[in-house]
Amino acid sequence: MTARRSGPDLTEAILRTTLDLGQELGYAKLSIEAIAVRAGVGKHTIYRRWSSKGALLLDAVLSLGQSSLDYPDTGNVAADLRQQIYAAVDLLATPPLRPLFQALVGEAQHDPGLAAELNERFITPQADKTVARLESARDQGQLAPGFDLDLAMAILSGPLYFRLLITQEPLTHAYVDRILDALFLGMGPRP
Amino acid sequence: MTARRSGPDLTEAILRTTLDLGQELGYAKLSIEAIAVRAGVGKHTIYRRWSSKGALLLDAVLSLGQSSLDYPDTGNVAADLRQQIYAAVDLLATPPLRPLFQALVGEAQHDPGLAAELNERFITPQADKTVARLESARDQGQLAPGFDLDLAMAILSGPLYFRLLITQEPLTHAYVDRILDALFLGMGPRP
Repeated sequence: MTARRSGPDLTEAILRTTLDLGQELGYAKLSIEAIAVRAGVGKHTIYRRWSSKGALLLDAVLSLGQSSLDYPDTGNVAADLRQQIYAAVDLLATPPLRPLFQALVGEAQHDPGLAAELNERFITPQADKTVARLESARDQGQLAPGFDLDLAMAILSGPLYFRLLITQEPLTHAYVDRILDALFLGMGPRP
Repeated sequence: MTARRSGPDLTEAILRTTLDLGQELGYAKLSIEAIAVRAGVGKHTIYRRWSSKGALLLDAVLSLGQSSLDYPDTGNVAADLRQQIYAAVDLLATPPLRPLFQALVGEAQHDPGLAAELNERFITPQADKTVARLESARDQGQLAPGFDLDLAMAILSGPLYFRLLITQEPLTHAYVDRILDALFLGMGPRP
């Protein structure tokens, strides 16, 4: 007789199974039905918690370490941004995350509900953390005084998403270094 | 009796039908079969030219005005970048382009062949134009001398793709202005 799983254990088992099966099958072939069979639960148990495959995948992806994306605050903003972005690209490089995260963003292009959840549960909290770290840097004179903090997330992460989703090249620490150097320098000539 | 269409006329009719039907049905419901019926051609006529719905949509989207994305060269690089990016966001704001372009990038997340075609036929030529315009600006002292031109496309277009694909907010001229101002200024404090 097996113990009856419930609550957090059951949720964790379903999320883990989603990631495992997602890695094995790819997003297109992944189904709630297959996840239910592998996790040994009924389909209704999954649908009670998640409205769609996309919503379930979002939770599974976020379970992999959103907390590791907090910013350090060593007093050196350039170094701290670098460490945080290294952590983000390292997380993305860990199988099966990259193809599943790409699939999630792909799905969000024709699923406005999923796009809204992605923003509410991942992008906005990350943007808030970024702005908070940069405000502290600005107060210490480590940022251009006129730098528009509301744009920070778009400017810092845009070049990463460009590489992730458009050119689909590897996200390396070297790329992160070059982007940060260029953004701190700025495009304009020195007066 | 209708005239027999061939060559460029036929291609143009199929691309136009793809855009019209894409706007009416959305990408998910768009099919080669439906395009063939509406355009009055056989499915094989379409498959002879395009290997998939994604490849056909890419051509249809590119037919809408890639040439309008050439850079002006008035001698003022900030103004010229602004005009070119305005043209790009205006093009994207013209129905049915934005949702179809989003669908195309979404599809490219699980179709490596389509991703490669998108890069080869759209992203790389745009990046080459951007670098050429910036090289001329650098030679005239209008750019930070150490600015890494190979990153220009990722840095300039990354924040646009972030808004297009992730936050899915409107791409406005005001947003373009703020991004360009921030990139020219740079994040680092002035020495």
